[in-house]
Amino acid sequence: MSAVGGNSNSGIGVEEEVSRLVEQAKELQDSASSLISRTSRDEDSLRQRANSLNSDIQRLQSSVRKSKFDSKHAEKLEEELLRARYILSEGDAAAYLPSKSHGRFLRMFLGPINVRANRKDVQLKVKEEYNSFRDRTAYLFLLFPSLLLILRSWIWDGCLPALPVQLYQAWLLYLYTGLALRENILRVNGSDIRPWWIYHHYFAMAMALISLTWEIERDPDCSQKQKGVQLFLKWAIMQGVAMLLQNRYQRQRLYTRIALGKAGRMDVVWGETAGVDGQLLLLCPVLFILQGFEAYVGVLLLKTAVVGVISEWQVITCGILLIIMAVGNFANTVQTLVTKSRVKAKMKRVRSKQELDQGSGKNQ
Amino acid sequence: MSAVGGNSNSGIGVEEEVSRLVEQAKELQDSASSLISRTSRDEDSLRQRANSLNSDIQRLQSSVRKSKFDSKHAEKLEEELLRARYILSEGDAAAYLPSKSHGRFLRMFLGPINVRANRKDVQLKVKEEYNSFRDRTAYLFLLFPSLLLILRSWIWDGCLPALPVQLYQAWLLYLYTGLALRENILRVNGSDIRPWWIYHHYFAMAMALISLTWEIERDPDCSQKQKGVQLFLKWAIMQGVAMLLQNRYQRQRLYTRIALGKAGRMDVVWGETAGVDGQLLLLCPVLFILQGFEAYVGVLLLKTAVVGVISEWQVITCGILLIIMAVGNFANTVQTLVTKSRVKAKMKRVRSKQELDQGSGKNQ
Repeated sequence: MSAVGGNSNSGIGVEEEVSRLVEQAKELQDSASSLISRTSRDEDSLRQRANSLNSDIQRLQSSVRKSKFDSKHAEKLEEELLRARYILSEGDAAAYLPSKSHGRFLRMFLGPINVRANRKDVQLKVKEEYNSFRDRTAYLFLLFPSLLLILRSWIWDGCLPALPVQLYQAWLLYLYTGLALRENILRVNGSDIRPWWIYHHYFAMAMALISLTWEIERDPDCSQKQKGVQLFLKWAIMQGVAMLLQNRYQRQRLYTRIALGKAGRMDVVWGETAGVDGQLLLLCPVLFILQGFEAYVGVLLLKTAVVGVISEWQVITCGILLIIMAVGNFANTVQTLVTKSRVKAKMKRVRSKQELDQGSGKNQ
Repeated sequence: MSAVGGNSNSGIGVEEEVSRLVEQAKELQDSASSLISRTSRDEDSLRQRANSLNSDIQRLQSSVRKSKFDSKHAEKLEEELLRARYILSEGDAAAYLPSKSHGRFLRMFLGPINVRANRKDVQLKVKEEYNSFRDRTAYLFLLFPSLLLILRSWIWDGCLPALPVQLYQAWLLYLYTGLALRENILRVNGSDIRPWWIYHHYFAMAMALISLTWEIERDPDCSQKQKGVQLFLKWAIMQGVAMLLQNRYQRQRLYTRIALGKAGRMDVVWGETAGVDGQLLLLCPVLFILQGFEAYVGVLLLKTAVVGVISEWQVITCGILLIIMAVGNFANTVQTLVTKSRVKAKMKRVRSKQELDQGSGKNQ
């Protein structure tokens, strides 16, 4: 009896535990579904509040702008409204503002999955990782083409073999696809990245893809045929330098934003402009030279196609793409600078007025 | 006085409204941050409960398997445990089970963004979209290579021009990248997709990339040189047919799952096996023929490289990749079939036992 009894006893123990686990699973299922429905209800109500607040702020901003208040009064009201807007758009409530649509590109590659992070710290982490991705790739952007050009004159007798160049082009394709995906994700997460920079990466993806189909052979006249590739590699080295400079600049902006946390948007703009003015002085000429060189490479490619040295469609298309990218980059860099200097001028005006007010207050 | 008074009155009105909006923004910020912290606290506790329940179930499953209960008793306990497991893994609580890591591929392209959907209906929507993506691409998979082969003999005098073939190859690269990304996302969302199918798409991506660098020229001996491309296109047509069949099969499985909702995992397996047995009979031979043809194309490519008609590295690499994919596909199809038939046999045993029990119950 002992063995059988022992067995059945422990059997009953196990049986009880099993039915306890089934009960626990059901309870857990109930808690989970009630948490999910409760949270989505709460989120919906926050979404409504955020939406109506956002439209109220916009309405008042336009009515203040149109109003006949004296400029001092209007400026004070505008500043207050900007503060409300900043709290709404930079705080935790930002997660409940209507998100930008995911866009065709993300849907094409990822399907309908949501890539928006609810928490501000996660969003900043995504941005930080994007910057470090750019950093890492900027070094490779310098390294790969330099290596190719060095090996060309050192080992390859002035003639690039196809495989290393194609590996580099495949890497470029991956890089630009990764950047375009990440930037679309950043945009969904509330980044105010200019649409042009994303389009720029679509063009660059197209160029990398086309250049893969480009014939790079060891011909007797290869130095003639490879002129385009060489120019492109030199441009890539310059691009690497510019990327490193840009990354330093953008990283400093982000750090300022994180450090200032929930301070007003104004303060952030002050901090930004104050910290990096010196770097802009270095960055801008480099960017403009780069854009000029990009257009120059494009024109050279078109010229070789017209003269008839290489008449492949790839050469013409790459030339056109490079010129489009150069012009677009130039226009957008100038626009960014204009916006920056406008904001700066406005800040200066507000600040000097505040100092004047404080001064007159003291005098009275 | 009237104009000035009216102005300052409305000014005060606006001022009040502005400060009300600032207050509202602060309140909204507080509600949002408290909702976020409350939700993440609740989710953490659910995560702990789900984890401990999961490990309890696993512990008991192995102890039941090792126990000396008679097989009928043990089977009943096992069934109960499977039910608990099913409630846990297929219900709302599944969102709080530890997720599979995002994996290198997703991190490479997307960075650290979370692609896991919390809600079961969203997860099923993602799966449904994946299936319709496969559907759409299956038709193109049939259309593109058929069109190329038809135009080849009809217009192009037996010689494929480079551009249309390269466009097709670029489309293949996009397709396989999209599939690999989507399948990784599905895996994170709890799909039990076999890792091989994802690896298969990595290999296919590599092959599409390599084939882009492949020279396809109008040579006098082009029919000889393009034999590999033609074989590949024929294989692609067959692949399109197989994809359509597979999609129908998988879609039916998913619908069964959605329809049965929170029924036990067993019922789902029953439903699955019952509904699609006929289709498997058609699907399997097609898949095996396809895999044989894939390996054959691979061997032919290697042969042309050895004989020396085309000695480019691309031909050898594509040949090897095709053979690897064919062997892997074959092994994984066989494994899937074996698993399916094992589950089916077990279900049959359980069912016949239940019928026996019910029968004996009636007799007593």
